[in-house]
Amino acid sequence: MSVLVSGSIAIDHVKTQKAAKENLLGGSASYAAIASRLFAPTGLVAIVGKDFPEEHMALLKGHDIDVSGIEVSDGDTFRWHGEYMEDMNERETLDVALNVLESWQPKVSDELQQSTSINLLANAHPLNQLAVIEQLGDKPAFTIADTMDLWIQIARDDLSKVLQEVDLLVLNDTEAKLLMETTNLVEAGRKMRDLGPDYIIIKKGEHGAMIFGDGEFFTAPAFPLDEVFDPTGAGDSFIGGFAGYLSSLGKAEFNFDDLKQALAHGTIAASFTCESFSTHALDELEKSTFDKRFADYLSYCQL
Amino acid sequence: MSVLVSGSIAIDHVKTQKAAKENLLGGSASYAAIASRLFAPTGLVAIVGKDFPEEHMALLKGHDIDVSGIEVSDGDTFRWHGEYMEDMNERETLDVALNVLESWQPKVSDELQQSTSINLLANAHPLNQLAVIEQLGDKPAFTIADTMDLWIQIARDDLSKVLQEVDLLVLNDTEAKLLMETTNLVEAGRKMRDLGPDYIIIKKGEHGAMIFGDGEFFTAPAFPLDEVFDPTGAGDSFIGGFAGYLSSLGKAEFNFDDLKQALAHGTIAASFTCESFSTHALDELEKSTFDKRFADYLSYCQL
Repeated sequence: MSVLVSGSIAIDHVKTQKAAKENLLGGSASYAAIASRLFAPTGLVAIVGKDFPEEHMALLKGHDIDVSGIEVSDGDTFRWHGEYMEDMNERETLDVALNVLESWQPKVSDELQQSTSINLLANAHPLNQLAVIEQLGDKPAFTIADTMDLWIQIARDDLSKVLQEVDLLVLNDTEAKLLMETTNLVEAGRKMRDLGPDYIIIKKGEHGAMIFGDGEFFTAPAFPLDEVFDPTGAGDSFIGGFAGYLSSLGKAEFNFDDLKQALAHGTIAASFTCESFSTHALDELEKSTFDKRFADYLSYCQL
Repeated sequence: MSVLVSGSIAIDHVKTQKAAKENLLGGSASYAAIASRLFAPTGLVAIVGKDFPEEHMALLKGHDIDVSGIEVSDGDTFRWHGEYMEDMNERETLDVALNVLESWQPKVSDELQQSTSINLLANAHPLNQLAVIEQLGDKPAFTIADTMDLWIQIARDDLSKVLQEVDLLVLNDTEAKLLMETTNLVEAGRKMRDLGPDYIIIKKGEHGAMIFGDGEFFTAPAFPLDEVFDPTGAGDSFIGGFAGYLSSLGKAEFNFDDLKQALAHGTIAASFTCESFSTHALDELEKSTFDKRFADYLSYCQL
């Protein structure tokens, strides 16, 4: 049982108030896959350019991620350049270049199609997400889509089609308010189910996440961090950890208790991502370190 | 074992985007006392003017709150007039008149001093809080102080003296950042213990609350509400419910597990306050309704 992660692979330049770093491995699918592989076999479907650093590809392979679905195309890799303010909740995109991502047509090989139990559509254009959904058919046990404000604004109709096909939609608090035109997140979460997905997760950054089902609700706080070094990719790592945990259960169907546990595991994966640039903390993460933090986390939020 | 609540009693005019109401019972001590009495005998130390509506005093008495410590003074009652925006997290104070509160000298009778196990200093000028602390001496088992941004800005030295004397400081997220000059709430909470209190609670409104102790931490979400009718007094009700629950344990000392449970009970008390103007929802609240919501709440945040 494995997770197929599709989405973006990027080369990031990130500046915080304390440090700056160039040519980092970034992108929604990179973070999600590296978090997912903590729990389950994971494959990637994405596109990079000829400029994609060999060390980044080696890193993905070193994590035993199936990279057969990564297309290396003429042109440059998708690039993102951002800066975080003193308040790490505020960030500015300084520059973004889609490059090879612009004309990407995701291709899922027969082999990847057969091995996929969880289809994780990390943040990408809804048309890319639809292309993966169509190729996988009804093979996955569970399909998850992440999205972002940009697609809500410029590709709403395509996003609506994605929502008809997925079991779970994940988005952050600002995006949920934008999509549902309300300032109340609980109302937004409940009503979003009418758009198609059985389950909705609203990510709230430092305030944790909420999941809404049919008359079901669960919320868990973020892991408390004294210092956030670089939150880039935290949301992607969250849903990657979520998908990986779910896949590790080896089930053909999931109940709400499974999703609650997955949410807690994703939360802890995301907490590590915040503690370093890029995927560095996840790269180094030992199972015992994860387990220790997970136990601490339970003591922090369970009565 | 009973709770002594000191602080403000106000006459509020409140406007939301859906309704407006005048001459409501308001003030930090009113909300806190009405929440506290759900769990334990509760007394009030406060001041009102000759204009204080008889129905409000009758309401407090009807809740079996000991009102012997409410001074009725020449002059007008403290008044607050506020408006909530479409996003209920944003509110504007349209008018505020301290009136009798300005020259208030809190007096705690011998009888109230003897019966107090929990000293709850609801939001008030730190000098008023200090006056109550001095009169109670070391009789209370536990002393809690709430505060607000105004006192951090204009009465910081007096507030520092209060912090030396209390077991627990409660404040909201904006105030915590202001007091500790940081944008990281976890850092703020941990460092605030250096100012004196053994425990710190940071209230985060719709995102719940966090409590910090000596190497101890706990956080609980807010109860999910589809619709917030009027959040005025939610924080006061939270700490009132917290104090009342603690008092109901009938202990001379409290451990961190007691405080965690108290935080959860305060959270549910606050959720009712958000569902009506003034203390109306708390006024009508039956024990069975509270218990039902508390059980739902546990299912929403416990794995």
